[in-house]
Amino acid sequence: MMRTIGIIGLGHVGMTTAFNVVAQNLVDQLVLFETNTAKANAEFLDIKDALGAVPQQQTQIIMNDYSALKTADCVVFAAGQGDATDDGDRNSEIKTTKKAVDEVLPHLLSSGFHGVLINISNPCDVVTAYWQEKLTLPQNQVIGTGTMLDTNRMRRGVAEALHISVADVAGYNLGEHGESQFTAWSTVHLLNQNEQAVKDLDQAAVEKAARLGGWTIFDGKHYTSYGIAMTAVELIKAVMSDSHQIYALSYFDTAVQTYIGHLGKVGKHGIVEALDLTLTAAEQQKYQISAKIIRENLAKMKTL
Amino acid sequence: MMRTIGIIGLGHVGMTTAFNVVAQNLVDQLVLFETNTAKANAEFLDIKDALGAVPQQQTQIIMNDYSALKTADCVVFAAGQGDATDDGDRNSEIKTTKKAVDEVLPHLLSSGFHGVLINISNPCDVVTAYWQEKLTLPQNQVIGTGTMLDTNRMRRGVAEALHISVADVAGYNLGEHGESQFTAWSTVHLLNQNEQAVKDLDQAAVEKAARLGGWTIFDGKHYTSYGIAMTAVELIKAVMSDSHQIYALSYFDTAVQTYIGHLGKVGKHGIVEALDLTLTAAEQQKYQISAKIIRENLAKMKTL
Amino acid sequence: MMRTIGIIGLGHVGMTTAFNVVAQNLVDQLVLFETNTAKANAEFLDIKDALGAVPQQQTQIIMNDYSALKTADCVVFAAGQGDATDDGDRNSEIKTTKKAVDEVLPHLLSSGFHGVLINISNPCDVVTAYWQEKLTLPQNQVIGTGTMLDTNRMRRGVAEALHISVADVAGYNLGEHGESQFTAWSTVHLLNQNEQAVKDLDQAAVEKAARLGGWTIFDGKHYTSYGIAMTAVELIKAVMSDSHQIYALSYFDTAVQTYIGHLGKVGKHGIVEALDLTLTAAEQQKYQISAKIIRENLAKMKTL
Amino acid sequence: MMRTIGIIGLGHVGMTTAFNVVAQNLVDQLVLFETNTAKANAEFLDIKDALGAVPQQQTQIIMNDYSALKTADCVVFAAGQGDATDDGDRNSEIKTTKKAVDEVLPHLLSSGFHGVLINISNPCDVVTAYWQEKLTLPQNQVIGTGTMLDTNRMRRGVAEALHISVADVAGYNLGEHGESQFTAWSTVHLLNQNEQAVKDLDQAAVEKAARLGGWTIFDGKHYTSYGIAMTAVELIKAVMSDSHQIYALSYFDTAVQTYIGHLGKVGKHGIVEALDLTLTAAEQQKYQISAKIIRENLAKMKTL
Repeated sequence: MMRTIGIIGLGHVGMTTAFNVVAQNLVDQLVLFETNTAKANAEFLDIKDALGAVPQQQTQIIMNDYSALKTADCVVFAAGQGDATDDGDRNSEIKTTKKAVDEVLPHLLSSGFHGVLINISNPCDVVTAYWQEKLTLPQNQVIGTGTMLDTNRMRRGVAEALHISVADVAGYNLGEHGESQFTAWSTVHLLNQNEQAVKDLDQAAVEKAARLGGWTIFDGKHYTSYGIAMTAVELIKAVMSDSHQIYALSYFDTAVQTYIGHLGKVGKHGIVEALDLTLTAAEQQKYQISAKIIRENLAKMKTL
Repeated sequence: MMRTIGIIGLGHVGMTTAFNVVAQNLVDQLVLFETNTAKANAEFLDIKDALGAVPQQQTQIIMNDYSALKTADCVVFAAGQGDATDDGDRNSEIKTTKKAVDEVLPHLLSSGFHGVLINISNPCDVVTAYWQEKLTLPQNQVIGTGTMLDTNRMRRGVAEALHISVADVAGYNLGEHGESQFTAWSTVHLLNQNEQAVKDLDQAAVEKAARLGGWTIFDGKHYTSYGIAMTAVELIKAVMSDSHQIYALSYFDTAVQTYIGHLGKVGKHGIVEALDLTLTAAEQQKYQISAKIIRENLAKMKTL
Repeated sequence: MMRTIGIIGLGHVGMTTAFNVVAQNLVDQLVLFETNTAKANAEFLDIKDALGAVPQQQTQIIMNDYSALKTADCVVFAAGQGDATDDGDRNSEIKTTKKAVDEVLPHLLSSGFHGVLINISNPCDVVTAYWQEKLTLPQNQVIGTGTMLDTNRMRRGVAEALHISVADVAGYNLGEHGESQFTAWSTVHLLNQNEQAVKDLDQAAVEKAARLGGWTIFDGKHYTSYGIAMTAVELIKAVMSDSHQIYALSYFDTAVQTYIGHLGKVGKHGIVEALDLTLTAAEQQKYQISAKIIRENLAKMKTL
Repeated sequence: MMRTIGIIGLGHVGMTTAFNVVAQNLVDQLVLFETNTAKANAEFLDIKDALGAVPQQQTQIIMNDYSALKTADCVVFAAGQGDATDDGDRNSEIKTTKKAVDEVLPHLLSSGFHGVLINISNPCDVVTAYWQEKLTLPQNQVIGTGTMLDTNRMRRGVAEALHISVADVAGYNLGEHGESQFTAWSTVHLLNQNEQAVKDLDQAAVEKAARLGGWTIFDGKHYTSYGIAMTAVELIKAVMSDSHQIYALSYFDTAVQTYIGHLGKVGKHGIVEALDLTLTAAEQQKYQISAKIIRENLAKMKTL
């Protein structure tokens, strides 16, 4: 059977995701959507040029055809003002992204798509929640990358400070994929359980670097691409291989009644098991604050 | 021993090359050079973010340190106005690129680098020739991607027209990586030697699409990236694995006394064997015209 | 949708194929069949151990369940006496392999499998033909690796003699995957069309080495595995990606009324286009002889 | 610079390691050693056949040439009776493996090899210790796979019992790579820190399955190959990429004065940092017992 995925929006993030899906030969059919047709055609040709040097790769690329999503396993939504934010607050993107969702929505609804929708567009939690309200998919099939990338940034920060491999650092960033996120230090540990090393870290510095990682990149190159695209690719792989791997990602948390970055087990139906974490009281408070911000932004989004 | 390569210039092409070198785990050390230090830092962090999701990849990334090139196997030059050409002629980039070469030159000379310089910057043949005149490397160690990408575009055009795999199409585009290039149809054939199929093609249309492929992409996305970057990656691999594979790329042709896209066997010392092709009289004439244009542009470049 | 393939028979060839399918992450479900259940369980655990070190790989492995083949894209048949031939003639394996086919047949028929059957078991052409007669699949969906590996051996022999890359050598070995095969020298050429280099080769030595390659390996290690397994993997990929790539492989040739190694275009329905080659009179004669041997062996097989 | 590794002994484990080193394109030069020259030649040709289908892979394979190890990064020792043990005790292999080490030793000493020796041959801890005593390499550059594979088996056992991904299970098997090994349950945890899930496991069953995993495979296929080979490949990668990743592997523990499976940080000089683990009293006792068995077996080995 054909493995098919769709990617909606070919800005830097969407295109970098698309390129890696092709380069890693993850699917048989890749369906790309971009309203700027000159750009769509250009990207189509450029990715074909990249394949030209690797004749064994045979991903079939389809442009702007929603009917091809009927049997797709995933759709990645990467449209909106993802490449141009200028005030240091992801929420400023809210209006542009809402417009993009609203335009795509009727096409996606009528396509018969019944796989997993992965939202990357910012503000990630809010946009994912909005998608879920508008689509008729089961709640567990609408997910966002949430704090997956922030988590990896934090893990790398710990690894670099301790001169170890990121593979030996566990733990999670939770809450909003935005300013109110936090590192749940009670979950951060080294696989070899050297507790003292984590205690001795400058935790505030590591946490700040993870939280602000995206802005540092944005300031220098005016968009972010590789990190978030590879995060999306990892999530695509987890869904398509039904890996049951656990991530801190954005899905609905009944306890706080919103989409928000927390632990979930990922498989071919999106969230295959909701998971609890025992947080400290201080962490719980940060989580509640983050949830409140997301709920408020979702309400704001609906009024725009 | 450590596999090391350098990439100079982190525009779209340089960065896409850098990302793929990391993603394919081709080297132990990747040395990146970018004069815009805010951008350099941003790209460094973004590529680190991409690695965060793939903890087994351990490429060490070094920024802006020419001394790290002393034992490098290759240096890829991708600086210059590669991302912004507006008059449909690659030669307009000549002045900006010359300035970039002149700035890098003393640093590269004093670094002790003695590997293979691969030039991507346009106008490719002219810039590669200029590099060779300025460096003290053996002539065979200074090469350009030349018509490698154009060749792949032509092969793909033939394959699509005939509904076959690009793997079964052979043949070359030769001459300038620019407007005067041409498809050497006398070399184009299917591996199963179905001569009639190639004769029946609309050769002019295929040739035109290959020649103008870059401009079509440029018009739509305002730069090209994936195709040329993957071409550079293929050339890097051929050098690093000493593959002795034959490509149409830019190196010095004594017959026409210039750098120009023609067949060469590539290995760890760059061009390990110069190769001849028997062309038709018409093809030879096109080749001579292309050579003349390149020589003239090189002369022009030196006066700027 | 799930990509599924089956592999029947876990001798050295079947297992090496299975391992590479998993290592290259080609499918979502791999269904393995082996009548020796202790061995089956051991191989299952050993391949699981191999996955243990690569937690991202998530191929689901299913043992001995024909019902899982209902929606499979391919089934690879690798059972029979593939690992133990002692008289220098692949036909001695005929009786053991026939028994294995006859045992598998009712299970495969009732499984509802309707994909592509790829036969590796020797004598390859005869066994593939026998499979096609017994199954109810369209003729183009029953194929054998045939002279694919012999072709690659010949190409490598040419490449080594000329100090070039095998990627630059084209041409085919045709006929029986056995003693009567031959190199169709009229098809052998370098991609850069240096005709003299091919003429100057010791063609007889290259051809002999390709034809006897399997026996040399068999003599030293008492079976062959890596070469034939990687050939099977290449064919699996061509089918699953619908690549339309051209190979010299075993499928029915109406001109000689038998399965035999000749050129075909491969895609998701097996042979998607039968292709002709213009051979010399001497080559045609060798092909006829090969066809006669295969037809006789098929007749012999049916009487055993 | 060229990445070079050597593999000594081409039994099932050595060859499976060699094949994967080539298939994953990990090195530029692979130097293989096998005293059975007919087998050596056969394996060389079979692996070349495998490359034939992947022309881009260009690993240079060198047979039986110790001088090529002078600048090698690693040598993997896989010789000895690794494929044929019949009494359920890895120590029975001791005599055959000692003979193999003693034969190789003068050649390796005179080769000028100064990289990392990775021993796979069993009894792994004893043989690694013996190698270290005979070679003139720094102690940290002589290491064995030890309980790496056992650790992965335990992690997989936990993951399967809990229906999660092995990527979310941490913890180690320690001690002898043999019967006296043990799961250090005090180190076993899920990355999401669900402590109850681990407590509720049938820990004895998981531990037994990990400890006996190799014998189950051995009983069914008469050797083990994929699991241990991929473990060796992972260790090769950690050394070659200087990953600083932490493994439970065999290196000298000054506390118990022997080579034994315990935690170490791995990089380009082998063990780049020795690590401590806080074990329970019961675990410490098991570790002491394991150490005693290894010391006794080493003493025994020296007298044979």
